[in-house]
Amino acid sequence: MASSLLSRQLALSLQQNLRLTAPGCRYVSKAAAKTQMEFEYDGPSMKTEVPGPRSKELTKQLGEMQNVGAINFFCNYEESRGNYLISSIPIGYNHPSLIKVMSNPNNMSAFVNRPALGIMPPENFPEKLAESLLSVAPSGMSRVQTMACGSCSNENAYKAMFIWYRNKERGHNIPSDEDVSSCMINQSPGCPDLSILSFMGGFHGRTMGCLATTHSKAIHKLDVPSFDWPIAPFPKLKYPLEEFTRENAQEEARCLEEVEDLIVQWRQKGRPVAGIVIEPIQAEGGDNHATPDFFKKLRNIARKHGSAFHVDEVQTGGGATGKFWAHEHWGMDDPADIVSFSKKMLTGGFYHKDELQADKAYRIFNTWMGDPSKNLFLAEVLNVIRRENLLEEVTRSGKTLLQGLYQLQDQYPNLLSSVLLGGCGDRSIRFRPALVFKEYHVHMFLNVFNDVLAEHT
Amino acid sequence: MASSLLSRQLALSLQQNLRLTAPGCRYVSKAAAKTQMEFEYDGPSMKTEVPGPRSKELTKQLGEMQNVGAINFFCNYEESRGNYLISSIPIGYNHPSLIKVMSNPNNMSAFVNRPALGIMPPENFPEKLAESLLSVAPSGMSRVQTMACGSCSNENAYKAMFIWYRNKERGHNIPSDEDVSSCMINQSPGCPDLSILSFMGGFHGRTMGCLATTHSKAIHKLDVPSFDWPIAPFPKLKYPLEEFTRENAQEEARCLEEVEDLIVQWRQKGRPVAGIVIEPIQAEGGDNHATPDFFKKLRNIARKHGSAFHVDEVQTGGGATGKFWAHEHWGMDDPADIVSFSKKMLTGGFYHKDELQADKAYRIFNTWMGDPSKNLFLAEVLNVIRRENLLEEVTRSGKTLLQGLYQLQDQYPNLLSSVLLGGCGDRSIRFRPALVFKEYHVHMFLNVFNDVLAEHT
Repeated sequence: MASSLLSRQLALSLQQNLRLTAPGCRYVSKAAAKTQMEFEYDGPSMKTEVPGPRSKELTKQLGEMQNVGAINFFCNYEESRGNYLISSIPIGYNHPSLIKVMSNPNNMSAFVNRPALGIMPPENFPEKLAESLLSVAPSGMSRVQTMACGSCSNENAYKAMFIWYRNKERGHNIPSDEDVSSCMINQSPGCPDLSILSFMGGFHGRTMGCLATTHSKAIHKLDVPSFDWPIAPFPKLKYPLEEFTRENAQEEARCLEEVEDLIVQWRQKGRPVAGIVIEPIQAEGGDNHATPDFFKKLRNIARKHGSAFHVDEVQTGGGATGKFWAHEHWGMDDPADIVSFSKKMLTGGFYHKDELQADKAYRIFNTWMGDPSKNLFLAEVLNVIRRENLLEEVTRSGKTLLQGLYQLQDQYPNLLSSVLLGGCGDRSIRFRPALVFKEYHVHMFLNVFNDVLAEHT
Repeated sequence: MASSLLSRQLALSLQQNLRLTAPGCRYVSKAAAKTQMEFEYDGPSMKTEVPGPRSKELTKQLGEMQNVGAINFFCNYEESRGNYLISSIPIGYNHPSLIKVMSNPNNMSAFVNRPALGIMPPENFPEKLAESLLSVAPSGMSRVQTMACGSCSNENAYKAMFIWYRNKERGHNIPSDEDVSSCMINQSPGCPDLSILSFMGGFHGRTMGCLATTHSKAIHKLDVPSFDWPIAPFPKLKYPLEEFTRENAQEEARCLEEVEDLIVQWRQKGRPVAGIVIEPIQAEGGDNHATPDFFKKLRNIARKHGSAFHVDEVQTGGGATGKFWAHEHWGMDDPADIVSFSKKMLTGGFYHKDELQADKAYRIFNTWMGDPSKNLFLAEVLNVIRRENLLEEVTRSGKTLLQGLYQLQDQYPNLLSSVLLGGCGDRSIRFRPALVFKEYHVHMFLNVFNDVLAEHT
């Protein structure tokens, strides 16, 4: 709510700002030079309030067909350029390299003939996987399964962990007749009482398996039956970090202790923890961070108790943190057993270690198993990230943004606190721009944000 | 297993068949004329065993990256035409009309700029929904929610039924503080002990909510935790139907009685049935049919007990039965509260009655909410279905196929029985061709099938 109010204020401020300039003239930051003059607009140009009259009309039309409560406004994507509409896409709207992929007649078949990838993949599928997803595989992982969306990725990652865990329990023997017959009617031992440990504030998707591990907002979970699975506290760090080193270390130790307690408790009540799932940075739950030390120790706890360790990079993966995967900031050779992804990766899916591979066909399966047209785009996005050094750019703009926010925090201490990066949680702003969000965009943002804060003092 | 053996035999027989013909000459049925000479190949031409050496090599390569146990062979989709590769697509491979959609520069944006449909839909979204999905909406339904795949469609349909049911229970009052706080930790009343009633043999997807209603094969369910939800028997009809009218009516009555008993039992044990989900024709479970009378009475039972009625048309929808939706064969004005779809519809999603609309934004939600590029294709597929009278064609080829199978049944009574339409179940063959499967394709199939059966006598 707070964040949505703030976005409206931002929009309003942009409008007022632009009223001061000559007609047709756009707001351009002087603080950093652009590099892509030919492609991107000079900046946002506000012509109406948001949503504008056309969006209101279209929202009314769509309201006759479906729920429109979450709609901000309608977009003209044909005319969109760059990344002024912040969203889950990696390199902004209408990037020339992606247009080129689309215009190449050799690629047409991937769009027109969607194959059932698990049964009849196209000839170039292994090659495309190798040059796209596997070229950025997390440390220790050489296997990947594509899926259509983030929720399906996590659902199937959970299934892979359950299958792996039960195979261990069975000593890798074939399932018993009782396993086979009881699973058909949803009962144990075939459908075992296993659990996934998740964290308060975590978000892992909205389908029923994922939703049992999502604990960010009630609106996602209310009225949907769930599983009795353990939920651990995520560290609540105090800022500035350097002033609270000791307190924060204690807080992380408390959370890790709770994790171990829960694993033991759930084992005792006959619902062993097959896997632990966590985001490297909690997103929906309020942009919450923890130290690399916390994640290293958590990974060790998983190993010690024989639970798989699943790092959910659906929101953080694909370069948004300046490294391709957020877990690379932990500096570990063996960071996880499973890493799931979607959003900026364009295709969903998950990487996994060899032993997490399901032992038989059709266990991790569905009709499409992803969409190879998304792999095509991803391969090109990776080329652009490399060619344009976007991970360095992200690091640079991230630093500039953080410094700017610190300055604003000093200037408006009653309005801004605990600036980290990041509407999410109850009172946080989350920044998840596309990778083409450069330093000059940061300055544009900071100027407008400054105006909004000034109006609130 | 049995079916996969049979497909291999079919492939083998095709090969042998073709060895008899002159090189380069293709097997062409004489029994029915083709209408699309310019576009489609004359028939399948087998050049190697299946899988061929190239597929074996590629399978080995892909095996280094993921499980390949379900892969039949690799395809050259660029060179594919028509529907000789039977799969979940509606009008065959490389249909000229779909190529045209792709080649239209106005459509490029829908592919390159995937929008978050729930937040910032493209300007043409209401119009495209109206001309595609809503133009074929089931009777009594004017609302539709798109989703990326079949499983997500059903997961969200279940959530819509749970939300609807709990809102009724609460007398449409706002949720209590206890509802809101308990749901965050997966506990009732916020995450209520509600259930979905499904049928033995049913298939509704593989994510954890869907999987709790899937009961076709153990391989889908083994080792995955599930819900204690009621499972009713699906009628096992005897064939030929006209000889067993009385027995079949009794069988259907028995199943319906069981449904009512289960609803009462589950209410008594504190897990009321919020919804009933059923396929109009069981697919994965063995191509099992029931009469319109059965479905009418089931729909009434749902209404009587206050449960929502969800017809899962993921496999049957989009024209495969000669009507656009299989449930149209029941001849009802109010066939369902929810109808879900995917596969031949290209986009996933579900239609629903007004009262099944979630009361608030973000309750039925995810990042993408489908993919508008699929809506573009669907609009054109619907044009082709209308222009080429494909529903009539499907009806005609279906009749021809059935007659042919009856003849083969008479000829090989020890090998073939209970011919209806339809590898699925333990010993069934399922036919789910594209809508462009014409009478002459039927004859091609019947000739080859005849050869295979002859070899087994």
